[in-house]
Amino acid sequence: MAQRDEFSLIEDIRRRAVVSDRTLVGIGDDAALLSVTGTDGVLVTLDVLTEGVHFDLEVSRPQAVGRKALAVNLSDIAAMAGRPTAAVVGLVLPRDRGARLADSLMEGMFDIAAEFGVDLIGGDTNTCDGLLVVSVTLLGEPSERGVVKRSGARAGDWVLVTGALGGSFQGRHLTFQPRVQEALALHAAADLHAMIDLSDGLASDARHLARESGVGLIIDARAVPIHEDVDGSLTDEARLERALCDGEDFELLLTVSEEDGRRLLERPPIEIHLSQIGEVTGEPGCRIRRDGGRIEPLPTGGWVHGFD
Amino acid sequence: MAQRDEFSLIEDIRRRAVVSDRTLVGIGDDAALLSVTGTDGVLVTLDVLTEGVHFDLEVSRPQAVGRKALAVNLSDIAAMAGRPTAAVVGLVLPRDRGARLADSLMEGMFDIAAEFGVDLIGGDTNTCDGLLVVSVTLLGEPSERGVVKRSGARAGDWVLVTGALGGSFQGRHLTFQPRVQEALALHAAADLHAMIDLSDGLASDARHLARESGVGLIIDARAVPIHEDVDGSLTDEARLERALCDGEDFELLLTVSEEDGRRLLERPPIEIHLSQIGEVTGEPGCRIRRDGGRIEPLPTGGWVHGFD
Repeated sequence: MAQRDEFSLIEDIRRRAVVSDRTLVGIGDDAALLSVTGTDGVLVTLDVLTEGVHFDLEVSRPQAVGRKALAVNLSDIAAMAGRPTAAVVGLVLPRDRGARLADSLMEGMFDIAAEFGVDLIGGDTNTCDGLLVVSVTLLGEPSERGVVKRSGARAGDWVLVTGALGGSFQGRHLTFQPRVQEALALHAAADLHAMIDLSDGLASDARHLARESGVGLIIDARAVPIHEDVDGSLTDEARLERALCDGEDFELLLTVSEEDGRRLLERPPIEIHLSQIGEVTGEPGCRIRRDGGRIEPLPTGGWVHGFD
Repeated sequence: MAQRDEFSLIEDIRRRAVVSDRTLVGIGDDAALLSVTGTDGVLVTLDVLTEGVHFDLEVSRPQAVGRKALAVNLSDIAAMAGRPTAAVVGLVLPRDRGARLADSLMEGMFDIAAEFGVDLIGGDTNTCDGLLVVSVTLLGEPSERGVVKRSGARAGDWVLVTGALGGSFQGRHLTFQPRVQEALALHAAADLHAMIDLSDGLASDARHLARESGVGLIIDARAVPIHEDVDGSLTDEARLERALCDGEDFELLLTVSEEDGRRLLERPPIEIHLSQIGEVTGEPGCRIRRDGGRIEPLPTGGWVHGFD
């Protein structure tokens, strides 16, 4: 493949980037300028995907990696009940395979950007003698009802989850559908007290939500929806462990009043499954009610980046 | 050093991140929420710094790298004549030295964030068996006079530059002062037609500005301000080459009407030096008027990321 440089890549991306009226200045200047509707502020989230950590190019196509890099950010905006608007992208490209990678990767990103109405408005490209790194910053706008934070859970709330959990590493961690529309529909139908997306895994993310809210949670083991991607030959306990700890489900974990919870389950405003999996307690800490009623600490686990 | 994980690092950063009233939701949720003043929109820029490309940790302290990672973005907002407001940070940390690096790096970033009134509102941390990568996305607001784009240069404009150029790799590429206040002061004092910050080098960045504006430029060789960091033992021609091509000066290149140009040079609204270095031509292409009057193509050069 012919030698390329960053400028020809950026020109290519610029040509292909479909932007909407909200992009007042797009790719090709020192900074992008994005118009803002209303006065409710701007949502901002950033996720970095690193080769060997979040994806393996021996297994996954670059298109799928590009898609995921935006999708994980869409999931974050969904978790705030926001509407995604525009993204900027940073690429660190391995020198020996950068051109091929960049084209395919951006193709995957353009596709999901179009699907979710996200403008690609800028970015930066480096080359290095190392691994592929993709950094995406996504902006969004709060809906009319405002954002849903992690910190609003109240004792007595029901804990709900969308979809089914576990086994995402069979491939769903790349192909998942960010729950943007579902979050907006739930938020329109009920007063969501707290919400988080399940990236680290239910056990870990439930702890984040509880800690930010200054409450505890009890998860009902029998109620946790286990995904069909989880190996059916495992014991029930091992399958539950996968649903609690695998991570990268990118479903929504939310809390609502009991009354709203009953209403949402009776007439769900979304097409994907919605389950009650537990309740919020005034006593801090996250616990699990095992089949048979025994209450234990929620397993630790889920993905944590450690370093020395 | 003890094993740490990303959550303890994020907690540390959260504790140390001073934020202003404009941060409605900061670190610790799925996305940050930033209030927006006025209806002029939001500026967004992203730069990625990669070990071995933009810095060398055998030579430079991590504090300086953290400072630079934000400073290059401040320079981009300056080039739009914007006011920086808030940043999100993505770190890819080498597993074997991540904790030490992250603390020092963030210290440098906090310092310059405080200096420029930038809130640190979120981010993401990975670890990998590779090189340090720092990705910063900076948001800003246009000033009352609107943004200054690369595309507004007109035939007959004067070409001005702040400061002096060349030799930044002696250390200035890490310690430079982003020209945020200077850009605002110039923009308040005159109608800036076009502006870009000098990151790739005058020769390369002049071409970007000319191409976006659909014009040409003639640079006057004798007028280019050469920085004292450029080796004085070089020939005049070699010293000029350094000023044109070294890059990472992070000064401002701008065009204004001749009338405004004269006025700005007579009573400069900024403390750093302001020079006229050429003029805008209707004929496309970038040229240089050598000492003696000979007109040649502007040298190509400046930093380009190439890959296969």
